Amino acid sequence: MNPLELTPDDFRRLAHRVSTLAEQWLAELDSRAIAPAITGRDTEALFAEGLPEEGLKDGALDALGPVMAGARAGNARFLGYVLGSGEPVGALGDYLASVLNQNVTAWRSSPTMVSLERAVVRGLAAAVGCPGFTGSLTGGGSSANLMGLTMAREAKAPANEEGSPSGVVYASTEVHMSIPKALALLGLGRRNLRLIPTDAEWRMRPEALERAITEDVAAGRRPLAIVATAGTVNTGAVDPLKEVAAIARRHGLWMHVDGAFGALAAMAVPERFEGLALADSLSMDAHKWLYQPVDCGVLLYRDATAARRAFSFSGDYVRTMSADAVEGFAFFDESLELSRRARALKPWLSVRYHGLRAFREAIRKDLENASRLAELVRAEPELELLAPVPLSAVCFRYVAGLAEPERDAFNTRLMARLNARGRVYLSNATLSGRFALRACFVNHRTTAEDVQTVVAEVLATAKELQGA
Amino acid sequence: MNPLELTPDDFRRLAHRVSTLAEQWLAELDSRAIAPAITGRDTEALFAEGLPEEGLKDGALDALGPVMAGARAGNARFLGYVLGSGEPVGALGDYLASVLNQNVTAWRSSPTMVSLERAVVRGLAAAVGCPGFTGSLTGGGSSANLMGLTMAREAKAPANEEGSPSGVVYASTEVHMSIPKALALLGLGRRNLRLIPTDAEWRMRPEALERAITEDVAAGRRPLAIVATAGTVNTGAVDPLKEVAAIARRHGLWMHVDGAFGALAAMAVPERFEGLALADSLSMDAHKWLYQPVDCGVLLYRDATAARRAFSFSGDYVRTMSADAVEGFAFFDESLELSRRARALKPWLSVRYHGLRAFREAIRKDLENASRLAELVRAEPELELLAPVPLSAVCFRYVAGLAEPERDAFNTRLMARLNARGRVYLSNATLSGRFALRACFVNHRTTAEDVQTVVAEVLATAKELQGA
Repeated sequence: MNPLELTPDDFRRLAHRVSTLAEQWLAELDSRAIAPAITGRDTEALFAEGLPEEGLKDGALDALGPVMAGARAGNARFLGYVLGSGEPVGALGDYLASVLNQNVTAWRSSPTMVSLERAVVRGLAAAVGCPGFTGSLTGGGSSANLMGLTMAREAKAPANEEGSPSGVVYASTEVHMSIPKALALLGLGRRNLRLIPTDAEWRMRPEALERAITEDVAAGRRPLAIVATAGTVNTGAVDPLKEVAAIARRHGLWMHVDGAFGALAAMAVPERFEGLALADSLSMDAHKWLYQPVDCGVLLYRDATAARRAFSFSGDYVRTMSADAVEGFAFFDESLELSRRARALKPWLSVRYHGLRAFREAIRKDLENASRLAELVRAEPELELLAPVPLSAVCFRYVAGLAEPERDAFNTRLMARLNARGRVYLSNATLSGRFALRACFVNHRTTAEDVQTVVAEVLATAKELQGA
Repeated sequence: MNPLELTPDDFRRLAHRVSTLAEQWLAELDSRAIAPAITGRDTEALFAEGLPEEGLKDGALDALGPVMAGARAGNARFLGYVLGSGEPVGALGDYLASVLNQNVTAWRSSPTMVSLERAVVRGLAAAVGCPGFTGSLTGGGSSANLMGLTMAREAKAPANEEGSPSGVVYASTEVHMSIPKALALLGLGRRNLRLIPTDAEWRMRPEALERAITEDVAAGRRPLAIVATAGTVNTGAVDPLKEVAAIARRHGLWMHVDGAFGALAAMAVPERFEGLALADSLSMDAHKWLYQPVDCGVLLYRDATAARRAFSFSGDYVRTMSADAVEGFAFFDESLELSRRARALKPWLSVRYHGLRAFREAIRKDLENASRLAELVRAEPELELLAPVPLSAVCFRYVAGLAEPERDAFNTRLMARLNARGRVYLSNATLSGRFALRACFVNHRTTAEDVQTVVAEVLATAKELQGA
């Protein structure tokens, strides 16, 4: 008997118990407080005893109760950050991925899973209007953006072999933190990220981009890449992709689109993403607007050769031994990862179950819910809408009876209290130095009634804080 | 009704069906052919129709049969690469992680999961003899090694802000491909990785390391870091960690240990890893020698400040708002990731169920099985052992009736045919230019009988190839 023996009966019993917990979690999601009432001291105490020397057998599962009680319940009224709602069929795909324990390094290691992932990538690329793009699934947008910029650097100013890379990357002032982080990691330096000003709707201004590039060239610096954002994290702004692409082409620069938040919405409203297919590389997160459980990022690119130039450097022990294009395929030649979980099984199962049409509808509903919230805010004198709503992020604040200098502090307290009440969860953004409450709809469970609850809860929380 | 509606009954029915598939997979694992008899054309054809516009509902699960039939069955006789055997309680932890859909960015986002992951990291650090180290779980060894070297670069020659990094990194000729890949990515350049020769047992030679550093310093170059390997991928060699650490200290260099394959064996045989705790950073893969399903890498480090210096660069919308050390904690300040799956749930549940003692025993059994295979090879005149077996990788080849120049080609064919027979799965290594069959034991299911089957299958395959 092996030391980690688990009989078929053991597995069946444990799987049944975990499935029951999963069913309960989903059934009770709507009635749970989103943010658990728990302190850091409480959560550390739960695990203070460390990992046990002797196994607890079935008793090990007893501790799952407190773990779940202190977890965040992402129900219909969780509207913080940009986090998808965890479609449960996708979760079942993940379950099977872990049991099968396929390592999706190369076709040789997991034949069907490699073809399945390639098919998911092709299918999603086609769905967002980028047919012919290939790529791979990643841990998330940060990895996908890092990989896109690695490709850009190697395409425009190769440094893999000699090191000492240099060059300038352009993005709007609304750029996601993962982009400066990638520049730092790649040895390009955060100071070589030019932050281009935006227009009144938080979109990169093409003429300012053009000017910045021209100035850098004149100063003897080397422009490498432009990062356009398709759905800024603050307000959901989509940079003018066609104009940016034209500038990139004119100057011979790589165009990466950070579509982690927004790009999958091109499935539903392609007209808002005109020019998306002009990108050289494109990141988008299926764990955001395709509602999949984390982690499920996607990196797409036009030219697999550029990915192999950036990432192919295989040790002998993983070198594939086939001349066949499929059987010789290795994701590690096009990725920074070697071992890779079968991430594609979840979107594959989830999309096959519901169909692409249902996902398009869910995205449209999110867009409607965001518009609905914006209208309710506009109609409510105690609230102020702080930005346009081009996709599904809504920035607003409470203003009634507050002078401008008091508003930031009050809304900061309001958000904390609102989230602690547990019925609604919002996050925040800073827009022109002002603190904004921010609701982001990438949640297939949210209804029109939930949107009304957001407004009601914000108003009730304000009353509570004002002692009314 | 939302467009992705799934009722509690739907979920229960689908979960039951997926659990049944999981049970079948595990029950039939031992009788399945490890490498499926399938071609690239077959696997591509399975997914040729793309993602469906209309949902197939329960029919979507019908396609799981062919997916599973064409997957690799990692049973007791799968001994390729370095891939753990997928402990099923861990898989159930993954299942729950996906249903709960926690995003382990920061305590604020998932209070219990953040504390749980910190506890798992602390517990594993203590278990391998590195108490007090902190860190995080990663997608795998490639990411963990990349992060360790990012910390090294920022500690010794900061480039996050200004770019243009330079410096030299040292590792043995047996270094894993993820290290040169990390140097390329970080802008240090692969040519600035010095490959230090090894001794007869494939361990880095400290005097050669010392000499290389001295030469680089004399030539005006800047040494940054030494990567010691605790378990080389070819033969499982453990570099002399204490000696390497002394050299690192003397020259003021960062010491990273790539323990992706081996370091977790320090739980069972700490005497083979003397000096491990002298590392500044250490990677190890729980999806290797802790038998967890992929992905489950671990990065440990002595000083969290160094991690924050390398990775902290937070955008406003994720900035935490607590002064409390636990409640203000954010993994993204110490990692290249932002969105993060609750990876820790699997080792936590798996270790609680079985207990650390059972894992120590399983590791000892792997070591015994490797020794057993080495003995059988030594005792078998038709086979030749090609390297010592310090951990659990065994390199050997078929030699009977073959002149030296014929051996590489014959063993290459032998491996392909052996794996195609489906009963045993080995991978390969190149040692001093010679092709070796390689069996690696990180598999809790392998028995002494399975080890005998490896030899029997190799001999039978050789007969088959020789037409005997």
